[in-house]
Amino acid sequence: MTVSDPRDVVAAKRDGKHLAPGELAAFVEGYTKGQIPDYLASAFLMAAFIRGLDPAETLALTHVMVDSGRTLPLDRVSRPKVDKHSTGGVADGVTLAFAPLGASLGLAVAKLSGRGLGHTGGTLDKLESIPGLRTDLEPEAFERQVEVIGCAVAAQTADLVPADGALYALRDATATVPSIPLIAASVMSKKLVVGTDLILLDVKAGSGAFMKTPEDAEQLARVCTGLARDWGRTCRAAVTDMSQPLGDAIGNALDVAEAVELLGGGSRGRLREVVLTFAAEAVSRLSGHDLGEGRRRAAEALDSGAALEAFRRMIEAQGGDAHVVDDPWGVLPRAPVRRPIVAEAAGYLTAVDAAALGRASSDLGAGRKRKGDRIDPAVGIVFRPKVGDRVESGEELGIVHTRDEDAAGACAARVLGALTLSEDPVEAPALVYGWYGR
Amino acid sequence: MTVSDPRDVVAAKRDGKHLAPGELAAFVEGYTKGQIPDYLASAFLMAAFIRGLDPAETLALTHVMVDSGRTLPLDRVSRPKVDKHSTGGVADGVTLAFAPLGASLGLAVAKLSGRGLGHTGGTLDKLESIPGLRTDLEPEAFERQVEVIGCAVAAQTADLVPADGALYALRDATATVPSIPLIAASVMSKKLVVGTDLILLDVKAGSGAFMKTPEDAEQLARVCTGLARDWGRTCRAAVTDMSQPLGDAIGNALDVAEAVELLGGGSRGRLREVVLTFAAEAVSRLSGHDLGEGRRRAAEALDSGAALEAFRRMIEAQGGDAHVVDDPWGVLPRAPVRRPIVAEAAGYLTAVDAAALGRASSDLGAGRKRKGDRIDPAVGIVFRPKVGDRVESGEELGIVHTRDEDAAGACAARVLGALTLSEDPVEAPALVYGWYGR
Repeated sequence: MTVSDPRDVVAAKRDGKHLAPGELAAFVEGYTKGQIPDYLASAFLMAAFIRGLDPAETLALTHVMVDSGRTLPLDRVSRPKVDKHSTGGVADGVTLAFAPLGASLGLAVAKLSGRGLGHTGGTLDKLESIPGLRTDLEPEAFERQVEVIGCAVAAQTADLVPADGALYALRDATATVPSIPLIAASVMSKKLVVGTDLILLDVKAGSGAFMKTPEDAEQLARVCTGLARDWGRTCRAAVTDMSQPLGDAIGNALDVAEAVELLGGGSRGRLREVVLTFAAEAVSRLSGHDLGEGRRRAAEALDSGAALEAFRRMIEAQGGDAHVVDDPWGVLPRAPVRRPIVAEAAGYLTAVDAAALGRASSDLGAGRKRKGDRIDPAVGIVFRPKVGDRVESGEELGIVHTRDEDAAGACAARVLGALTLSEDPVEAPALVYGWYGR
Repeated sequence: MTVSDPRDVVAAKRDGKHLAPGELAAFVEGYTKGQIPDYLASAFLMAAFIRGLDPAETLALTHVMVDSGRTLPLDRVSRPKVDKHSTGGVADGVTLAFAPLGASLGLAVAKLSGRGLGHTGGTLDKLESIPGLRTDLEPEAFERQVEVIGCAVAAQTADLVPADGALYALRDATATVPSIPLIAASVMSKKLVVGTDLILLDVKAGSGAFMKTPEDAEQLARVCTGLARDWGRTCRAAVTDMSQPLGDAIGNALDVAEAVELLGGGSRGRLREVVLTFAAEAVSRLSGHDLGEGRRRAAEALDSGAALEAFRRMIEAQGGDAHVVDDPWGVLPRAPVRRPIVAEAAGYLTAVDAAALGRASSDLGAGRKRKGDRIDPAVGIVFRPKVGDRVESGEELGIVHTRDEDAAGACAARVLGALTLSEDPVEAPALVYGWYGR
């Protein structure tokens, strides 16, 4: 269908009207084909942001985005296929560990990923801190690796959902990113083009996430899983806590070292817990075991070294120096300055401003302010205590990894400034708020 | 002041927050200076459209627009100075008649005008149908003419309120025109840069106007007069009826002929009534007479020929063929085809779709669809009956003036299709709904 005057579509959304799927599709398609200028599309995005998109409109938008490029059916992969996506958080190494863990459990984890932006890290950036590792896999190579190794993490290519790239760049430039239907269409279009049996979403909630409250995160989880249902796909979404950093490492090489430890069974704590939760969900959905059995098998794969071996094979397949799984710091780039973060007071940790820690690490060079910025794989922050922990004055809480002493001092001070201590004990916050979708 | 990230301003308005005047000013100034791209400005305009701007924000926006160019203080004009603006209507020849009428009453009418767009006519276009007449007066010539002749109608130059030109073009392209605060800032910035003692606004309400209801028009009148008050200027705004064409002529040369007839005391009816209402207001505000005396003097100026003489002097001063006031159709361009509009049924006229008549005339060539389109001064529609009049089958209701027979037939049919007749008598609608401002 054609739109006689695309301004009519914008005016209708401006006035809070429901758009017919065809109208919305024609408008977005016109934009992605360059027939509708940026300034009209941004006016539309703002109207959609404020007035919202209902499920039918969100589905129509997702359809246009999926139809804008090629798909990746993964027909030649015989294992049960799963994709896992996080909406982004701080010290969020779940995907990095989930992929090889899933492979070691007999699943095929097919993960196309974007790069980190703002205060949240990106799985691609983390992986690329391993010398030699490539993420620019051709679709055929990606599919073959998923079948043979059981997992692959590759950069989303420009021919997959090109409309999302164009729209996301415009949203980023026009303060229209944090809209639930726009986020849902963006996230789900990238999942729906890949032919998997199960889509797992980790919708983060809290100060370190886009969704600041569990309620907002729940709404996003419901819209995303609803889109998958309307598409005829299976999608399960968990809302998980991002009110504090999930793991300990906020950086790139630092996250890989943390993943190696976790995959080798050497770590406990909240990051392992979330990884096990997703692995159990995948096993139970795809292999017919119950959740308890799925969890037991996942824990065993970590503790037996099977998951770490899968990580080794994935790194080898993608050209990286697989010796990293045996001796991370013999392989990974290391920052020249490493300064302890020392507690200046005692008390119970009641809050850790995750976004502040994310920004502090990003400002060291671990993240990018704008798309295309180069990042420094070696720098970052390791911060160990979690909310509820008791901290003593003079205790080493972690280490900042920087290029020079000045940056180290400033960063350590920012970390301390992001903490809230109390005299009274506090409970650790919930880790998983709930599961959505079917 | 500077804005660190202009997206923060857009996000704040998106979320319905009040912007500090300095924030809003820096953003709009950044746009007019080319530092902020169209796509971010249009996102802002959409957010402002939906969330609204409060009086302080509207004032700040108006300030930026006024400050974007030069002003025209008119210091050397000794007469009491008045500006008169209409928000745009169909068969709205008020300004064309008001300017010379005001001059004949001892006032100085200083009128800078834009061109017609869409279904509404523009005073400049009408005047330029007089052979030789120029509207591109230099500021000095404009001021001299206002002092010597008592009136001048000239094109707004690009150096007056350039920010308005840029913003208006973007609003037109992004479905963000019909916002009361944005319209008010646009209208008032162009009035405030001209140093007059009184600003008169004719805020049209009805199907032929931007404001479809008297309530919306009242709101616009209140915002505009409030802006003037905050600026320390006197502004009076009347909300007047535009539920049907005000005068009889919808075109350009046709409007000039109608103005000549009105200024020579040769017409009665709603157009004359509105012209007298504004003239009485101006006289009473600027010359100290009461409204009744102002009205009496204005009517006398029309009926004595004094107003028509002032029109002659204005036309002469602007290089036009002043013989037009003696024999309009000896001077004005005339369309080759003139076909009567003949009533096909009898009844009381209960509605005339003014916008439909405006579009029909515009489609003949009398108006422009896009800025910069050429117009045909000769074509248009004369339609005489008003709501409440009794119409007989076979009665000639007016004449369409066109370039060819096909257009004439089609246009006459469109006019008839825009009428609603009833068996029962109906009241004529109100003409002036109310006055606002002080």
